Amino acid sequence: MIRVERLSLEEVKSLDRADPLGHKRDEFCIPEGLIYLDGNSLGALPKAVKKRLASTVETEWGNSLIRAWNSHQWMELPAKAGDKIGQLIGAGKGTVIAADTTSLNVAKAVSAGLELNPGRRVILTDNGNFPTDVYMAQGVADTLGKGHQLKIVDPADVFDALDESIAVMMLTEVDYRTGRRHDMHKLTRRAHQVGTIAIWDLAHSAGAFEVDLEACNADLAVGCTYKYLNGGPGSPAFIYVAARHQTLIKPMLSGWIGHRAPFDFDLEYQPADGVRRMNVGTPPVLALSALDSALDVWEGVDMAQVRAKSVQLCELFISEVEARCSQYGLKLASPRDAAVRGSQVSFHCPQGYAVMRALIASQVIGDFRAPDVIRFGFTPLYLSYTDVYHAAEILEKVLENKLWQVPEFMKKGQVT
Amino acid sequence: MIRVERLSLEEVKSLDRADPLGHKRDEFCIPEGLIYLDGNSLGALPKAVKKRLASTVETEWGNSLIRAWNSHQWMELPAKAGDKIGQLIGAGKGTVIAADTTSLNVAKAVSAGLELNPGRRVILTDNGNFPTDVYMAQGVADTLGKGHQLKIVDPADVFDALDESIAVMMLTEVDYRTGRRHDMHKLTRRAHQVGTIAIWDLAHSAGAFEVDLEACNADLAVGCTYKYLNGGPGSPAFIYVAARHQTLIKPMLSGWIGHRAPFDFDLEYQPADGVRRMNVGTPPVLALSALDSALDVWEGVDMAQVRAKSVQLCELFISEVEARCSQYGLKLASPRDAAVRGSQVSFHCPQGYAVMRALIASQVIGDFRAPDVIRFGFTPLYLSYTDVYHAAEILEKVLENKLWQVPEFMKKGQVT
Repeated sequence: MIRVERLSLEEVKSLDRADPLGHKRDEFCIPEGLIYLDGNSLGALPKAVKKRLASTVETEWGNSLIRAWNSHQWMELPAKAGDKIGQLIGAGKGTVIAADTTSLNVAKAVSAGLELNPGRRVILTDNGNFPTDVYMAQGVADTLGKGHQLKIVDPADVFDALDESIAVMMLTEVDYRTGRRHDMHKLTRRAHQVGTIAIWDLAHSAGAFEVDLEACNADLAVGCTYKYLNGGPGSPAFIYVAARHQTLIKPMLSGWIGHRAPFDFDLEYQPADGVRRMNVGTPPVLALSALDSALDVWEGVDMAQVRAKSVQLCELFISEVEARCSQYGLKLASPRDAAVRGSQVSFHCPQGYAVMRALIASQVIGDFRAPDVIRFGFTPLYLSYTDVYHAAEILEKVLENKLWQVPEFMKKGQVT
Repeated sequence: MIRVERLSLEEVKSLDRADPLGHKRDEFCIPEGLIYLDGNSLGALPKAVKKRLASTVETEWGNSLIRAWNSHQWMELPAKAGDKIGQLIGAGKGTVIAADTTSLNVAKAVSAGLELNPGRRVILTDNGNFPTDVYMAQGVADTLGKGHQLKIVDPADVFDALDESIAVMMLTEVDYRTGRRHDMHKLTRRAHQVGTIAIWDLAHSAGAFEVDLEACNADLAVGCTYKYLNGGPGSPAFIYVAARHQTLIKPMLSGWIGHRAPFDFDLEYQPADGVRRMNVGTPPVLALSALDSALDVWEGVDMAQVRAKSVQLCELFISEVEARCSQYGLKLASPRDAAVRGSQVSFHCPQGYAVMRALIASQVIGDFRAPDVIRFGFTPLYLSYTDVYHAAEILEKVLENKLWQVPEFMKKGQVT
C-alpha cells in the first residue's frame, strides 16, 4: 500500500480556512450531511435561482403575461446567458448563445463544420466521446447523404489521424468516464494545419477550469450547463461559433428565432447576424431564466483559482483513496497527471455498482459507469477539502465493512 | 351598421352564471382588472404550476440532486406530459412526447415524413402556415440535398394541389393571423388517397378545441404548449407519431435520449421503441415539470364544452365589435363561419398597431400582426362572457376617444 504525503485532518481543515473560494459554498443549497461528488453530472442548486425562478413565474409570466417578452426582455435571454458563459470559456461577446440541448447543438455544429469544409467527407472523433455526440454526427452524416463517414479512433490516436481527408474533428475535451483531458491547443493547431474544422464539446470543461476558445482558435464549440455551470436538470446547452465563421453558416436547423427579423413573419428564411442564427425555436424562458441566474455565481470568480482548487481536491482524493482503499482492489482509472485530467476522478472498483449504491446510502454521492468505474466530480465552488477527506474515509468504511453486499433477507425479496 | 341579436350585459352575465367551465378560472392567476385575450400567444399561469415548480427546484433538484432522475422519474416526463397532451388531441398512449420546440419537431416530422415517402420530392404547404414551419422544412429539404422542393399555395388551394407528386403535406390547422381553420379530416383523407404523408401543426388547436388525430388518421403532428395549454413561456413542444409509423422512422436528430438504452453508452445509435425515439437530448426537467403540472387543469374537462364556449365567446365578440366599431373602419379578418374558425378572432383595423397599444394600456390585451390585423384569442378555461363584452366596450372607447393617437408632446420626444 502506498502512503505518501498524506495530510492530517487538521491540515485538511487548514486548507479550507485558507481557501479563497470557500465563501462561495454559501451561495448554494447543499443538503445537510451530504457530500456531493456528482456536480459533473448535475450541479447543485444556487440559492439565487429559487428566487429568480419564482419571480419569473409569478411576476413575469403570471402578471406581465405576453407583455413580458418586451418588459423583461425574454428574447434576449439566449444571448445574455450566452455572453456570461462566453466569459468562462474565452469566447467574446456575441459568439455564444444558450439554446436547445448539447445533442442538438452538436448537430448544428457538425452540419456547419461540414458546410465550411465542403470538399471533404470524414468526421473524426474518438471512442472517449460522449455517445450522443457520435449519434448526432452520424445522424447528420446520414441525412446529408453525400457519403460522409465517421472515423472513430482511440483518444491517443487523434493527433496522428488528422490528415487532409478530415473535414471536421469533433471531440469532447474531457472524457466523461475517466476525466482524461485532450490538449485543445495542440489538436486544434494540428487540425488547422491539415485544413480541418475543430469542434469542441466542453460539457465537462465549462465551469470546471479555464477554457480559452479564442486563444486556441477553435472553430465551433458546444457544451452543457447543468454540470459545472449549475443551470438545473436539463438546462439549455450552449453553442459557440467563431466570429470569422458566423456569416458563412446557413443553419441546417433554420428556425424563426434564428431569422433576421422573426416578427416580420416573412415566409423566406434569412439568417440573423452572428451567432443568433444558431437559435431555432421559441426560447425556453423558465429554463433560461434559471440558467441566467445560476451563471451569476461566477461573477468575480477567478478561474485560475477554480482550477488550482480543483487539482488540489482531486489530488487529495486520489491520495486518500489509494492509501485507504487499494487493498480492496480499487485502481485509479483517471490519468495520474493533473495536467491531462479534468475535474473528476474515477476508479476501477470491483462490485463498483453495489459499492456506489452503498456509498450513496452513506451520504456520499458519486456515480457509476459500466463496467466497473466509480466516478467522482469535484466542484470547487461548493466542495471543501474536508468534504473530500471524509468522502474517502466513508468509502473506506463501505469497503472495510462490506456495506455494499446486499443483505441476505433483501435477496429473498422480503424487503422491496 | 349591423346590430343584430345583441345581448344585454345582464344576458351576458347570465351566460357566465350558467357556464359549466366557469369554475376553472379559479385555477389560474389572472391579474386583477386585466382582460387577457392573448392566450393564443402565451397562456395564463395555472396556480398549481407555482407550487410544483418551486418543489421541483427545492425538493427535487436542491435536495435529491442527481438521485431525482430516479426518485422523481425525471426521465419519464416527456412521455408523461406527452400522454396528457395526447388525451386532448385524440392520440393514444405512447404516441406523443413533449420535447424541444415546435420548430425542431417540425424538422423531425418533415424528415420522417420524407423518409416514409422516399420516391417523391415535394413538400406541400400553404402561405397561411407559421413561418418557422416553412423555414424548418426548407432547411431539411436543403440538407437532404436530393432536390426536395417546397410548394407553397393559398390555403384554399391545398386540396386541389394534392397529387401524386406530393411526398408530404405539412399544414398548420389554424392560421395564426386570421384563425381560419383547415378541414383536417378532409385534407388528410385526400392526402392519403394520393399517397401523401400528412403532418399537422396543432399550435393553435391543442387545448382550443377537440382534435382527433387518430380518427382522421394523421401520420405525424407537432404543436405548441405555451398557448392554449398554458405550459409557460417557451415551454416544451410536442410531437405525435402514428403508431403504424413509429418503428419505421430512423430519426435525423438521433440523440441519446432517443436511444434504446441511453445508459449503456453504446457508440452505435439504436432507436428506442415507439415515439420515444423522437427524443434527442437531456429532458428540460424544470420546463417539463411546469408543463406537466399545467396540463392537470384539463383533468375532467369536456373538450366539447370548451369548443362550445369558445364559439360563443368568439360570436359574442364579433357581434359586439361589429356593432360598436365598424364605424371606425374595423373589418372582420377571420372567417365568419365558426365551423372554419379556431378560437381566435382578428379584425383589419386602420392604425391597428397604435390601436392595440392603446387597448393594452386600457387593460385589454390582444396582439397585432402586420400590416393591419388586431388579433384576439379566446381561452374558455379562464375567460368569462363578461370579460369579452367589456373588451369590446373598451375597444370602442379607444376608437371613439382616439386614445390610440400619440399625444403631441410624446412625438416631440419630451417623454420617453
